[in-house]
Amino acid sequence: KGVLGAADSPRPPNIVLLLMDDMGWGDLGVYGEPSRETPNLDRMAAEGMLLTNFYSANPLCSPSRAALLTGRLPIRNGFYTTNGHARNAYTPQEVVGGIPDSELLLPELLRKANYTSKIVGKWHLGHRPQFHPLKHGFDEWFGSPNCHFGPYDNRARPNIPVYRDREMVGRFYEEFPINRKTGESNLTQIYLQEALDFIKKHQTVQHPFFLYWAIDATHAPVYASRRFLGSSQRGRYGDAVREIDDSVGEILRLLQDRGIANNTFVFFTSDNGAALSSAPKEGGSNGPFLCGKETTFEGGMREPALAWWPGHIPAGWVSHQLGSVMDLFTTSLALAGLELPQDRVIDGLNLLPAMLQGQLIDRPIFYYRGNTLMAITQGEYKAHFWTWTNSWEEFTQGIDFCPGQNVSGVTTHTQEEHTLLPLIFHLGRDPGERYPLSFTSSEYQAALSMLGPAAQQHQKTLIPGQPQLNVCNPAVMNWAPPGCEKLGKCLTPPESVPEKCSWPH
Amino acid sequence: KGVLGAADSPRPPNIVLLLMDDMGWGDLGVYGEPSRETPNLDRMAAEGMLLTNFYSANPLCSPSRAALLTGRLPIRNGFYTTNGHARNAYTPQEVVGGIPDSELLLPELLRKANYTSKIVGKWHLGHRPQFHPLKHGFDEWFGSPNCHFGPYDNRARPNIPVYRDREMVGRFYEEFPINRKTGESNLTQIYLQEALDFIKKHQTVQHPFFLYWAIDATHAPVYASRRFLGSSQRGRYGDAVREIDDSVGEILRLLQDRGIANNTFVFFTSDNGAALSSAPKEGGSNGPFLCGKETTFEGGMREPALAWWPGHIPAGWVSHQLGSVMDLFTTSLALAGLELPQDRVIDGLNLLPAMLQGQLIDRPIFYYRGNTLMAITQGEYKAHFWTWTNSWEEFTQGIDFCPGQNVSGVTTHTQEEHTLLPLIFHLGRDPGERYPLSFTSSEYQAALSMLGPAAQQHQKTLIPGQPQLNVCNPAVMNWAPPGCEKLGKCLTPPESVPEKCSWPH
Ligand SMILES: [Ca+2]
Ligand SMILES: [Ca+2]
Repeated sequence: KGVLGAADSPRPPNIVLLLMDDMGWGDLGVYGEPSRETPNLDRMAAEGMLLTNFYSANPLCSPSRAALLTGRLPIRNGFYTTNGHARNAYTPQEVVGGIPDSELLLPELLRKANYTSKIVGKWHLGHRPQFHPLKHGFDEWFGSPNCHFGPYDNRARPNIPVYRDREMVGRFYEEFPINRKTGESNLTQIYLQEALDFIKKHQTVQHPFFLYWAIDATHAPVYASRRFLGSSQRGRYGDAVREIDDSVGEILRLLQDRGIANNTFVFFTSDNGAALSSAPKEGGSNGPFLCGKETTFEGGMREPALAWWPGHIPAGWVSHQLGSVMDLFTTSLALAGLELPQDRVIDGLNLLPAMLQGQLIDRPIFYYRGNTLMAITQGEYKAHFWTWTNSWEEFTQGIDFCPGQNVSGVTTHTQEEHTLLPLIFHLGRDPGERYPLSFTSSEYQAALSMLGPAAQQHQKTLIPGQPQLNVCNPAVMNWAPPGCEKLGKCLTPPESVPEKCSWPH
Repeated sequence: KGVLGAADSPRPPNIVLLLMDDMGWGDLGVYGEPSRETPNLDRMAAEGMLLTNFYSANPLCSPSRAALLTGRLPIRNGFYTTNGHARNAYTPQEVVGGIPDSELLLPELLRKANYTSKIVGKWHLGHRPQFHPLKHGFDEWFGSPNCHFGPYDNRARPNIPVYRDREMVGRFYEEFPINRKTGESNLTQIYLQEALDFIKKHQTVQHPFFLYWAIDATHAPVYASRRFLGSSQRGRYGDAVREIDDSVGEILRLLQDRGIANNTFVFFTSDNGAALSSAPKEGGSNGPFLCGKETTFEGGMREPALAWWPGHIPAGWVSHQLGSVMDLFTTSLALAGLELPQDRVIDGLNLLPAMLQGQLIDRPIFYYRGNTLMAITQGEYKAHFWTWTNSWEEFTQGIDFCPGQNVSGVTTHTQEEHTLLPLIFHLGRDPGERYPLSFTSSEYQAALSMLGPAAQQHQKTLIPGQPQLNVCNPAVMNWAPPGCEKLGKCLTPPESVPEKCSWPH
């Protein structure tokens, strides 16, 4: 067996990525959630590795997921907008764009090593036909192209479809009910069954599998099955977490029961920080960190992250490696024994040396909002070049990305530029970003002389991709997805009116 | 062996209380501190029980410690002031009062079961002769009567003495150096050696021992030995935590090596929340909780708490039992097979049913500042009758008990009364006390109908003790402690000028 664990072995390991939606760093018992209601995830950490410094590539769903599957920053793969400075964009159903054909997605590449790939849950890289996951390397899909917002009236907006592979099999709030009043939905159980069935089907065959389990019960409107409703000390959000914890336990148990745990690499993380503007009922916890989803403070982008691969990753290890969801791309290719694409910049790092040998690899973390590099972390230091939470207009309407938190000059409600004199924090002493280093200190100067050039080098060599999230059109919504005829669920699209999408954050 | 583990056994278990100073709930890896630098404490939790909802009896050192050793609220045992409404008081060296002779302290009672008792570290229940720990039940002492503030000039104020048993053996910053510039001091190593020596001396004899290890390296000015300075990602405060973690590991290892772990009950906690006004260099973390030391928000009084008794307390258990440092009094008496004093109110609860059988006992937690009941928690709900952080005057001078945090109408800078309509929080959904329940909700009404009568019942039946912390006098400072003649370290006291102590918080 080679240095990297599996690269030389005849059959590379199966890969299971468990991607949560809007789950925060502080939502797991093992990360300090006071109710400690995640025994299965805590056990996953005890049997594997816990990463303390693992980041999403963006504080919002679509760009983070596009980054995970391409190994590239959203500014490169096109998952950003130029409609407004430092505005996050995503893929609601009126968006025209999606993942470009020119991008190489992880399942596309894993095919070269004979992997069979399935996505269960939320795709979110575009819902129009050319963006379909089966056109980008996945062999199977059960789930939805967009968030489970709704219910809609199917006149102004259609309800979001649920697909099995190429065709829709129903819509949220119709064939796949979510009770907005009680929070009841059995979607997580359906997604769990899809995962278990896929694993069972593929465990006996010659070829390895890649399962991308991208469930969304912790994204507002949060939901849980009847069995879990009311089971948490934390309310409905906690009920969703408990059901997810239970489901992860079932997946790991199946891998163990079938004797394939030692040949299956499992990684658990989330796409962005907890959505504090929906808390406490519909949002989670970012622990000691500042702010949440939509922001480039630690609460917006630092994620829970557990790696599990019995017999390979030592049990109980903790790693302070700066990691990114983009590393899951690169690490998965390394597991599969595949080379990285040579024709493009890949931002992801191969984390196997950190996971298998405890190495610490020096690398930067970039924090973007839309087209703007807001901040950078390297080593223990983080520099903010721009600060912003949300606008005064939104804030005074009650939308608060940092409830109960206020750091003067840091959690600003206007976009504040600091490029000439960045705000710098020492994340070890001050994980909550409350105490900017004094501009006159030698520590500030030393940190700046490391972080400044790293950011400049990045920006100087960066070639942004074509922005995909600028244009919206009500005619492109999920009116008549493939398969709708069979089900009698086709709706008539309105007139095509392309217009600039408006991104408030 | 009886139901309560040891009550019927011939030799009751040894008792070791490890009491930290100003250490916060969020300072341990197992409670989610991102640097995860407490492997020994994390292992202690894994081998024993972690309590998520354990509280100090006051957000300040002296009253919390008086409560621990008497099992009684400071309002009963006299460790409060009537000099100002809702002001915390403690025992600086100009204070005239201390622990009254009428109070029964834990070591005094444990004598009836033949325990030998030692206090290592900070006493803080009064420094004048009548308050000496050896007059209140301890058999041995190595440590100081007051905080290690200084250095002083020995003219306006004397440096704080260090005692061995009845007599001083030196002073801080003199025989027991603390380098304010580098943070270097070997005091934790000295305190560790005292603990190890005491355990070794008593492990072979017939009688059980009680060790009260009340160290203070995490109280400002924080310090660490040279070996630990610079070892933490968290700066000097983290260096102190690492040395403490290492020391706890040595103590537990000794108990195991000598084969007495199964007969020694060990409890680790802290006297109040992290001192955020000293953070980040000299203060710790309260994790996801609101504010810190001096306040009656969760950050001021919720504490890390680990119980360890191999073979008795099941490994890896987590308890949500509402606990208090006062419970250590009652629990220790239960361990010793002793009855509670019948002539007074004891606020502490016997936690053995929670620790040994996983029971959850319904009980309230009272949050006092000085003479004022600020808040109460029962079940999942907390009601604030008064809110206050500190005065505008102090706050505008830069003293901030809630840095980076601001909850409108909650973290108030004037003393706000809410007795008619308390602010109520659900601590499960909202551990950070950010979202008061709506006064018009049925949930509010139900919570109020539980919490209101519980507080009224407490206040109606309460008989406050004589306040001990009202009078100060420069003449009572540590000018000439017993033993000073032998050392040639007696100083001349100034004229006696008794006056009302001033308590700003
Ligand atoms: Ca998300
Ligand atoms: Ca203290």
